[in-house]
Amino acid sequence: MSLERILNAESVAIVGASKDPTKRGFQTIRTLVEEKYEGKIYPVNPKEKSILGFACSKSVSDIPGPVDMALIATPAKTVPAILEDCGRKGVKGAVILAVGFREMGHEGGLLEEQVVSVAQKYGIRIIGPNTSGMMNLKTGLNLVGLRDAPRGDIGLISQSGNMALTLITEARLKSLKGFSYYIGVGNESDIRFHEYLEFFRNDPGTKVILMYVEGMRAGRKFLQQAYKTSIEKPIVLLKSGRSATGQKSAGSHTGALAGISEVSRTAFARAGIIVIEKSDQLFPAAETLSGLPPLKNGNVAILADGGGHATIAADILSELGIGVPEFAETTCAKLKRILPGAASVCNPVDVAGGTDADPTLFADCADIILKDPNISGLLIVGLFGGYGIRFAESLGLKEEDAAHQLGRMVRKRNKPIVLHSLYASAKAHPIHLLRYYNIPVYDSIDIACKCIGVLGEYGNYLHSYHAKTNFVFDWGVRRKPAAVEIFRQAKREGRNVLLEHEAKQIFAMHGAPVIPDRLVKTAGEAVAAAREFKSDVVLKIVSPDILHKSDAKGVRVKLHTEKEIRQAFAEIMANAKAYKPDADIRGILVSPMAQEGTEVIIGTKIDDQFGPVVMFGIGGIMVEVLKDVAFRVLPISNASAKKMIREIRSYPILRGTRGRPPSDEKALRRLLLACSEIVESYVEIREMDLNPVIVHEKGLSIVDARIIM
Amino acid sequence: MSLERILNAESVAIVGASKDPTKRGFQTIRTLVEEKYEGKIYPVNPKEKSILGFACSKSVSDIPGPVDMALIATPAKTVPAILEDCGRKGVKGAVILAVGFREMGHEGGLLEEQVVSVAQKYGIRIIGPNTSGMMNLKTGLNLVGLRDAPRGDIGLISQSGNMALTLITEARLKSLKGFSYYIGVGNESDIRFHEYLEFFRNDPGTKVILMYVEGMRAGRKFLQQAYKTSIEKPIVLLKSGRSATGQKSAGSHTGALAGISEVSRTAFARAGIIVIEKSDQLFPAAETLSGLPPLKNGNVAILADGGGHATIAADILSELGIGVPEFAETTCAKLKRILPGAASVCNPVDVAGGTDADPTLFADCADIILKDPNISGLLIVGLFGGYGIRFAESLGLKEEDAAHQLGRMVRKRNKPIVLHSLYASAKAHPIHLLRYYNIPVYDSIDIACKCIGVLGEYGNYLHSYHAKTNFVFDWGVRRKPAAVEIFRQAKREGRNVLLEHEAKQIFAMHGAPVIPDRLVKTAGEAVAAAREFKSDVVLKIVSPDILHKSDAKGVRVKLHTEKEIRQAFAEIMANAKAYKPDADIRGILVSPMAQEGTEVIIGTKIDDQFGPVVMFGIGGIMVEVLKDVAFRVLPISNASAKKMIREIRSYPILRGTRGRPPSDEKALRRLLLACSEIVESYVEIREMDLNPVIVHEKGLSIVDARIIM
Repeated sequence: MSLERILNAESVAIVGASKDPTKRGFQTIRTLVEEKYEGKIYPVNPKEKSILGFACSKSVSDIPGPVDMALIATPAKTVPAILEDCGRKGVKGAVILAVGFREMGHEGGLLEEQVVSVAQKYGIRIIGPNTSGMMNLKTGLNLVGLRDAPRGDIGLISQSGNMALTLITEARLKSLKGFSYYIGVGNESDIRFHEYLEFFRNDPGTKVILMYVEGMRAGRKFLQQAYKTSIEKPIVLLKSGRSATGQKSAGSHTGALAGISEVSRTAFARAGIIVIEKSDQLFPAAETLSGLPPLKNGNVAILADGGGHATIAADILSELGIGVPEFAETTCAKLKRILPGAASVCNPVDVAGGTDADPTLFADCADIILKDPNISGLLIVGLFGGYGIRFAESLGLKEEDAAHQLGRMVRKRNKPIVLHSLYASAKAHPIHLLRYYNIPVYDSIDIACKCIGVLGEYGNYLHSYHAKTNFVFDWGVRRKPAAVEIFRQAKREGRNVLLEHEAKQIFAMHGAPVIPDRLVKTAGEAVAAAREFKSDVVLKIVSPDILHKSDAKGVRVKLHTEKEIRQAFAEIMANAKAYKPDADIRGILVSPMAQEGTEVIIGTKIDDQFGPVVMFGIGGIMVEVLKDVAFRVLPISNASAKKMIREIRSYPILRGTRGRPPSDEKALRRLLLACSEIVESYVEIREMDLNPVIVHEKGLSIVDARIIM
Repeated sequence: MSLERILNAESVAIVGASKDPTKRGFQTIRTLVEEKYEGKIYPVNPKEKSILGFACSKSVSDIPGPVDMALIATPAKTVPAILEDCGRKGVKGAVILAVGFREMGHEGGLLEEQVVSVAQKYGIRIIGPNTSGMMNLKTGLNLVGLRDAPRGDIGLISQSGNMALTLITEARLKSLKGFSYYIGVGNESDIRFHEYLEFFRNDPGTKVILMYVEGMRAGRKFLQQAYKTSIEKPIVLLKSGRSATGQKSAGSHTGALAGISEVSRTAFARAGIIVIEKSDQLFPAAETLSGLPPLKNGNVAILADGGGHATIAADILSELGIGVPEFAETTCAKLKRILPGAASVCNPVDVAGGTDADPTLFADCADIILKDPNISGLLIVGLFGGYGIRFAESLGLKEEDAAHQLGRMVRKRNKPIVLHSLYASAKAHPIHLLRYYNIPVYDSIDIACKCIGVLGEYGNYLHSYHAKTNFVFDWGVRRKPAAVEIFRQAKREGRNVLLEHEAKQIFAMHGAPVIPDRLVKTAGEAVAAAREFKSDVVLKIVSPDILHKSDAKGVRVKLHTEKEIRQAFAEIMANAKAYKPDADIRGILVSPMAQEGTEVIIGTKIDDQFGPVVMFGIGGIMVEVLKDVAFRVLPISNASAKKMIREIRSYPILRGTRGRPPSDEKALRRLLLACSEIVESYVEIREMDLNPVIVHEKGLSIVDARIIM
């Protein structure tokens, strides 16, 4: 069911309504009145006649009119019975405030399951439990009891009431922005993150979605919705619970599945989500994205009234991947004409006192700079807003003039401007004006730079999202009957692991270059196979009972002569029997030795939160010792495959070093895509392991492959 | 000369004094009057009779009384003549404000040299040029013209006037702290950073030194002074100009040598400097260190009135290396007694609404927590300071009560408390009180955590500084006469490179385990040497004209039989002659093959800013492709050697992996120390290169060595 009827509820029951002003059951009603909630308010309390003028009902089912939403403000153990009553009444949704559910351990978990099953029986959708509530700032449906939250176009989803309060307070103190809705997700027992995303995507009153997340119960669906949403509206997200202590804290806080895995970072980015690391940058990022156009080309100018701020800003922007390029010559020439001799007219621009007598010079400079076609945004750092305070009041009027000009410039050129000002918190009128024009103003250079940073990141994403996958599997679409038969045969035999040659056959069916092989039963057959391959060969034991062939001494390499082959055959058989006397031995696999190249490892597995993921790294020390690997949520696109190959630190080894030729990156990319296709084709697969794959100067060879069901 | 007479000048001449209120030559005199400067004020302007009641002199030498200090507020080109005049008058120091010196390129550089040479002639010490000035807030010697800077115990050294203004403004808005001195270092033409450090170390009014640095002209002396200073007083430093654009900006700003090298990070830390990366954490770090004791054991507790803030704080502290350990059982039990059932009484503590009715509970919890012997500090996150604002005024009085208790607790237990509060900027009285007790309060969790972080970092340093070197070379103290003779001989021959066996001899003299060798002239001698070594041997060409032996095909390895040795000898000789027909060939070096082990590389060079430094890495891909190396400024201590070995990412390889035994880390450490000793012993050495060194399970072998003078 759509969340529309709940989040825009036209009638609300307050279960646990109270006359005590310290109780939530009173505060909520008072706030609904103060915020002029457009719908109907029904207090529920068997002991009271009326509260704040509203007639009390004995129970939800006693309420005279229809009820869209119930706020349940009573203790945990009372919730199931109240929900039953709500169900009978036909209530569409409920906000459950109480703690004492999944976050409190096993018993609480059982209670939560009970609540969810009652809700499902009646089709009630649940926000919470363990939440501070929700607010619809448009209709005044404020079930949080928090007053004076500013209205605006930011949709807020938070797993912590305090973080929501922080963000709302920041909005009021440091911007002119506000919120369309606030949702306290709580334990995510019924409605999940992705459903709220979908709602906000379709809500015309929401321009940006701001999220604080500790854990997530349906990661893949979230990615799918995020992918669809971020193309239309930016999503800004802070994920806490990265550290062990943080996870412990989050667990006791929201009962969230602790710690989204390492996979999440790249997955979120691929889904277009702007991931924020520092909590004090979270609101500024949302503010910026809600009011300013993204950067067109990732290049900006810095305009400063002093060198130190410019230097710091240049460092930070560089670390954020934002370019601060040279200006066109005409830009420098024009700046030179209006700035004093000591000024730096290169990027970063330092006005060197030029604005001391007339801050409108900021606007003149900005106008010249933003006309430069290679510059797609502007960061002003320094004292703007403080000239009137610090030097002379009349300069304040000139600053206002400049603020109007800067604001109009943003609209006219569709290029963003962000300000750092030492006087951001001074509540000077010029700063107020800038904010009126959607120009963020912060007194931290780090934060101001981050605002530019997210405009760059979102701009980049919009230029490239079409090449990304949407995290949706087309399960089984390229399924091959012969491969299905291999899985069936294994199942019939009670195996959950494919034999090496079976796994390789499946790879071959999907166009991956496996090394040819022959399964042989006798030494004579092995010799014949080697002759056919015209190459030194490898012999490997094949048995569903021997998973780790090397441990069983079941592998021999570089066999050249017939004598070597026969001897190896005999030894392997003997070793296998010694290793596991009752092993079901299917024979020995003969393959030609692979050519030289770089060993890489590819694996896939099912992540708890995101489903199938793929891992890639360079074999040996790089993976085993340095843990230098890249992860991606499957399916992947060609661009993703390329990026994951290039993001490992040891990538230069693949590029070719110390006289060794480069490896065939294109072949490797094709193999990663084949892995993606294979996982998509066979829902049976739980884990795959290609170890090693040898990447040659031209092409590659899958030397060993394992598939686990 | 000590800076005492200058920074505490008792008389000051204002050269370029003016009656125009927009001019620095007026503003400075006005500020000196307003700040009640205790010394004498002498305006200098040939055209004026008096300014603000002070009689004007025609020139500095015309001033009736003695003059300690001159503020020169006239354009760059006038400075040399004015300094001459100051010199004749016996002025001790001068602040030169003008721009137009080294930061403006070659011509400006020449002018700066001229200024410095005049200053040296007369023994005048110079602050600047290209500076905003200096302030002594104790005596009111304010040569910046900035009013209302708060007085306190932080000594401020900045290479940007705007950054100084930022820090001073932050102090006023966000703390009760202030400054003892401000020094605008400018171009560092005469007085260098380290001299200011020395001054502040000896100044009883300064408790913390706060620095903003873009570049530095005497890095090693700075490290030496920092080492001495940080033991007594914390030094907090932000270094900008890390990125290419940042360096460009810094260069045009202060003419500083762009970008302190990568070496600086570890060097600063070894010298006890608290290096800050984010500009908005700079002042908070100084504030914290000036008022609170460092952490005794790096472990703290988090006390929260909501889960989200606690989770975020736990993440950040963990990233800062601060422990958030479990409490003692008695601590949990005591907390359980006073907190509601839903509270988390583990670390992080979540009071779960327990403070809603009575915020003094914060103090009760803090008291219990700080009695836990394993907890050496406390971070409180959430809404403290806002209870009186948000809920009920009476709660504000309880918050004041709690603030007093918290403040006294810090003093009594000598354990620091830091607060994050959403209401930090609300100017609530409880927050004011906390600051009165030196408890920092910030509305950014990141910043509050960083405050705890720097207390941990400084505490760690004080526990370990004794094991660190003081960056002072005892040049030549362990000089060996035989080694000196090798250098002399090379010089006599006009060489700046020692031959391989010469370099190895020097290493051997300092106890490093070089592989033995024989320099032979004939194949017969080579065979005899091999017999003596009882091992396969390596043959290498020895010629001052062939630096890259492999390029000249001058190396042959694994030679076993006499025939192989003779043939290799002949081939090497032939190859060398083909490579460079007129090469001065000294013979061929015969050495036994080294045993198996891990190849490492050690090198030393002279860094522009810090002097001799040493580099270490694991040979092959790790150094050449992954650039995985560690640097240290020499000399190094045993602890530094250990740390630098362990900080490379590929260290696990040395620890032994994939069935290979661990390498002899102790031997490697001894070799690094020997390198340190050798560089210290021979001022002749410009560069050393040990490549490769093979580290065995027991001991190591220096296979090749190069020393460049």
